[in-house]
Amino acid sequence: MKIQVLTNVLKANQTIALENRRSFEKNRILVLNLMSSPGAGKTLILERTIEKLKDDFNLAVIEGDVATTNDAERLAKHQIPVVQITTESFGGACHLDANMVKKATEKLDLSWVQILFIENIGNLICPAEFVLGEDKKIIVLSLTEGEDKPSKYPLAFRISDLLLINKIDLLPHVDTDLDVLLQNAQKVNSQLFPIKLSAKTEEGLENWLNWLVKEYQSRFQNNSS
Amino acid sequence: MKIQVLTNVLKANQTIALENRRSFEKNRILVLNLMSSPGAGKTLILERTIEKLKDDFNLAVIEGDVATTNDAERLAKHQIPVVQITTESFGGACHLDANMVKKATEKLDLSWVQILFIENIGNLICPAEFVLGEDKKIIVLSLTEGEDKPSKYPLAFRISDLLLINKIDLLPHVDTDLDVLLQNAQKVNSQLFPIKLSAKTEEGLENWLNWLVKEYQSRFQNNSS
Repeated sequence: MKIQVLTNVLKANQTIALENRRSFEKNRILVLNLMSSPGAGKTLILERTIEKLKDDFNLAVIEGDVATTNDAERLAKHQIPVVQITTESFGGACHLDANMVKKATEKLDLSWVQILFIENIGNLICPAEFVLGEDKKIIVLSLTEGEDKPSKYPLAFRISDLLLINKIDLLPHVDTDLDVLLQNAQKVNSQLFPIKLSAKTEEGLENWLNWLVKEYQSRFQNNSS
Repeated sequence: MKIQVLTNVLKANQTIALENRRSFEKNRILVLNLMSSPGAGKTLILERTIEKLKDDFNLAVIEGDVATTNDAERLAKHQIPVVQITTESFGGACHLDANMVKKATEKLDLSWVQILFIENIGNLICPAEFVLGEDKKIIVLSLTEGEDKPSKYPLAFRISDLLLINKIDLLPHVDTDLDVLLQNAQKVNSQLFPIKLSAKTEEGLENWLNWLVKEYQSRFQNNSS
């Protein structure tokens, strides 16, 4: 009974995610779904990314949180459109779903947006089960979380396209073995491309920005007007 | 429909949690439910705790993970009984529930155990909704996660009795404002008692051990044989 309901929920989600997908494609938007544990640094990565790219691209963010609009406020300071979803009103849901994203996109001028970041709820488990209509899934892992996380939370790493290892400025101060972390990620998903960075010091940030720009260009630039 | 099912699930969980509770009380066991984000350091805190207390108390651990038995293996090295629950076989559940704990306790000699630690799945949202039959809920937060987590994930902090702020050895290297963190925790739950520690350097570990021993003694020592 319980599992049947869950199956129905996931099917309904997939249907709406496909509608989102069509709408994003029609409007030629690159859509990225960022997932991580709480406090891995998604918002600071987005702040740095917006600073660097907002003159070249029309950026927007859909910001997911259980409670507060703190992160949306941080991002909105950078003068780009931000729509906040707080899941407290959805029973404290531990992930965004396609319908929440659909509702949020109604508040954006999609014909203007070129890159849409969806910052998912801080959670390494639930968001992995719900497609939103995104082009790529990005998993952000803080170095401080330890090298075993890809093995212990395999689904999120298995379905992701890019692994951002954040807070590498803390490498001298923590026991995490970066090589073992990368090996563990490869074991779970041999296609998962890793980028090491520190949003705080901006070390490695360029690699992420290059990935992003290339991803956009390969999709849209060739045929753009 | 969906919410009705959830209500039934939570009610069924509560019934089994009460059975667990009676069984723990009958056997005079202090039961602690440890919750946190992935990588906050629950397992290392338990390793240190076991080292320090295993000569004075009969300790056991129920270890919850989505996948792998890594943590249970780390703990079992300290020569205490450890039962691993991996929720991959429960559809990758993002929390332990009372029935999983009940099944796990069947593998322990409850008449021998004095303190039972339940290490929940690394997740700051879902575990907060499922009582297990524990005496106290402990929320572990790594300093690296930032000072805003109590505001952003309020339920887990609201229902907890003790806040362990771990990795304080990293204080000089991160931007987290510890005072603001403590204020945010107080705003959500004025009864939440905070202890700062580093499982790595053992700074502050004594305060946690004292809390634990006092908690046990106030419950059982007065009438013990």
